Amino acid sequence: MFEFCLEATQGFARAGTLTLPHGPVRTPAFMPVGTHAVVRGLSAGEVRRTGAQIILGNTYHLHLRPGEAVVQAMGGLNGFTTWSGPMLTDSGGFQVFSLEGLRRIEEHGVEFQSHIDGTLRMLTPERVMEIQWQLGADVAMAFDHVVPGQASFEVASEGMERTLRWLDRCKAKHEELVGKRGGGEAGRLRDLNHGETTTSALPSFPASPQTMWPIIQGGVHEQLRLRSLKGTLERGPWTGVAIGGLSVGEPKPVLHHVLELLHPALPVGIPRYLMGVGFPPDLLEGIARGIDLFDCVAATRNGRHGTAWLQTGRLNVKGAALKGSVEPLDPACDCETCTTYPRGYLRHLFVVEDILALRLISIHNIRFLVRLGEQARAHILDGTFDRWSREWLGRYYAGRNI
Amino acid sequence: MFEFCLEATQGFARAGTLTLPHGPVRTPAFMPVGTHAVVRGLSAGEVRRTGAQIILGNTYHLHLRPGEAVVQAMGGLNGFTTWSGPMLTDSGGFQVFSLEGLRRIEEHGVEFQSHIDGTLRMLTPERVMEIQWQLGADVAMAFDHVVPGQASFEVASEGMERTLRWLDRCKAKHEELVGKRGGGEAGRLRDLNHGETTTSALPSFPASPQTMWPIIQGGVHEQLRLRSLKGTLERGPWTGVAIGGLSVGEPKPVLHHVLELLHPALPVGIPRYLMGVGFPPDLLEGIARGIDLFDCVAATRNGRHGTAWLQTGRLNVKGAALKGSVEPLDPACDCETCTTYPRGYLRHLFVVEDILALRLISIHNIRFLVRLGEQARAHILDGTFDRWSREWLGRYYAGRNI
Repeated sequence: MFEFCLEATQGFARAGTLTLPHGPVRTPAFMPVGTHAVVRGLSAGEVRRTGAQIILGNTYHLHLRPGEAVVQAMGGLNGFTTWSGPMLTDSGGFQVFSLEGLRRIEEHGVEFQSHIDGTLRMLTPERVMEIQWQLGADVAMAFDHVVPGQASFEVASEGMERTLRWLDRCKAKHEELVGKRGGGEAGRLRDLNHGETTTSALPSFPASPQTMWPIIQGGVHEQLRLRSLKGTLERGPWTGVAIGGLSVGEPKPVLHHVLELLHPALPVGIPRYLMGVGFPPDLLEGIARGIDLFDCVAATRNGRHGTAWLQTGRLNVKGAALKGSVEPLDPACDCETCTTYPRGYLRHLFVVEDILALRLISIHNIRFLVRLGEQARAHILDGTFDRWSREWLGRYYAGRNI
Repeated sequence: MFEFCLEATQGFARAGTLTLPHGPVRTPAFMPVGTHAVVRGLSAGEVRRTGAQIILGNTYHLHLRPGEAVVQAMGGLNGFTTWSGPMLTDSGGFQVFSLEGLRRIEEHGVEFQSHIDGTLRMLTPERVMEIQWQLGADVAMAFDHVVPGQASFEVASEGMERTLRWLDRCKAKHEELVGKRGGGEAGRLRDLNHGETTTSALPSFPASPQTMWPIIQGGVHEQLRLRSLKGTLERGPWTGVAIGGLSVGEPKPVLHHVLELLHPALPVGIPRYLMGVGFPPDLLEGIARGIDLFDCVAATRNGRHGTAWLQTGRLNVKGAALKGSVEPLDPACDCETCTTYPRGYLRHLFVVEDILALRLISIHNIRFLVRLGEQARAHILDGTFDRWSREWLGRYYAGRNI
């Protein structure tokens, strides 16, 4: 379990298969984001039909609503959402550190004010492990100290070092949880519920094993990134590793440079997850630099705003040019939207503000990223990734934006 | 084509099959409303999976956006929406007469101000027939003068008499359109496009035949209702007849009385469509009084507001009682929502304001009404409708509202 089988490489690019309790994930792969345990506007069946293999949930949001005890009592995220495939939960680090002015950072953890009801809450490495344990995803993420994209060396260093110290505490807590699960001790989960009333003490939860991945920090500073990676690996072994704190405003070449810097030092045998990335070209640029897994809300966010991704660039689905068009949104796409609806109808749905519009473009955009991963994988496996990727990016950037 | 085969009756209740160009409609049946050529928030496939056999579109809304010429150029409503089954378009009478202060009624037609862009527009009986012809539904409705629910005898009489005079004009215009279609005259549809630029003159449109149904008016006044029915039948024969101007604020017993009054005078061999009705009990009350077809936006409107219909009454899906519940929304229901999602997840989707929530409850509510029609039909066919209907209504009204 949690094995990663590397099947082929081309340059830095890798094709592999990650085995998770709820199924395999063939990489490179885009993971749709279900912040509130729902990929915005989409049913689990629709996400499945995009070809997505694994979806994300968010610890911060799910802790606030409905609370991890409720999710646990309903069978964890899989039971709660009816999504039967692999899942990953983010640790909430990114969210609480974004609550500028509403949070206080201490070595112990982060005290913050709920953006829902203003209540004071505390997230610590241990608490974050407990919450994710109760949410029950296949993969939990370590609690990290995320600094702003252009943070100074000193600020980035502080966050990176704290992330390492917190990693020790996350690891210890997660091993304790895993040990308890293995031990079959009755009623042991009652302790985790912190007085929530809706939870029943399940005899063995999660029903399937959970692993935990660390997150590399260090901002845009080479020395800090390498120190973070070294410190992280010393605390291993790990079944996967994430690169955080990127795609937060820094120029693309800086992001690419960090990936190129880390690649030779990263272990070959575990998957690499670039957090919060990306847009279509970002996926190809990341894959070319050794990344296996991606997540980003851009697919659904763009979909809701009427922007569809095509092989020839972005398309504004609300544009007058689409009025009356019987063409599919993207003739090259095999998603439900493109194989069913004419462009003129999609535009009409936006004009009359029907929520079906948001859904249909989100489905297309997710399928677009998922398929990009599938195509990249096929080209890595047959050794044609570099040329294909170059051509793809050229076509995308040259594309007309309607 | 457009035949109605009456298969069984029990008391006033009727079970039949209406044959339309896009397929049969087994009655009694609820018809979901797709005002803007979309059943709010639902894909055509989802509507199909509720078991709905025919959906509505609205002439007023579709004339404004995207315009009938656009719909025609995209293959009519079926091509535009990808719904391949039967369709019916309302004439827009109800909408323009609701535009209090924004419309001027003349014998020639109704001049009104678009609620979208404020432009002055004119709907006449002839124009309404042309628009519906271009929209291309199986069934078009006559343009009627709708008066408020509690209109005086004089006001109701004026509207009813005008509706009869307009029926003559609608019939003449529709026969002209049908005749042109039959005649195969080239370019004849160019005249209909009124300078819209996106239309191409299709050689024969609609691709399938269209029928037109009259609407009985007369408010709550017995004498006027009977006069409307008599005058309407004298102008026939018709393939169906609608009862309009009800369910607009009058007490239920008054509605029921009008239906009982009309029943003996209505021809047995054509379907009877009660416009704008209804809620679940209204369907059973209408069926018991000889109604075959219903439409109403309540299913989707309630769904969007978090109210689900159950056999035991209404349920507020946002209610705290549902938190953490692993039960289906309605254990007796076979819809996608009830067979897939636990109540606790549906509530969560409302709490986090994800649009998936609106869709899932709308699907359930539509399936609920469609299934009520299916059940009523089965009970009429086996002669148990009266008892079943009484028991059903008793259980529904006795139900707890959570």
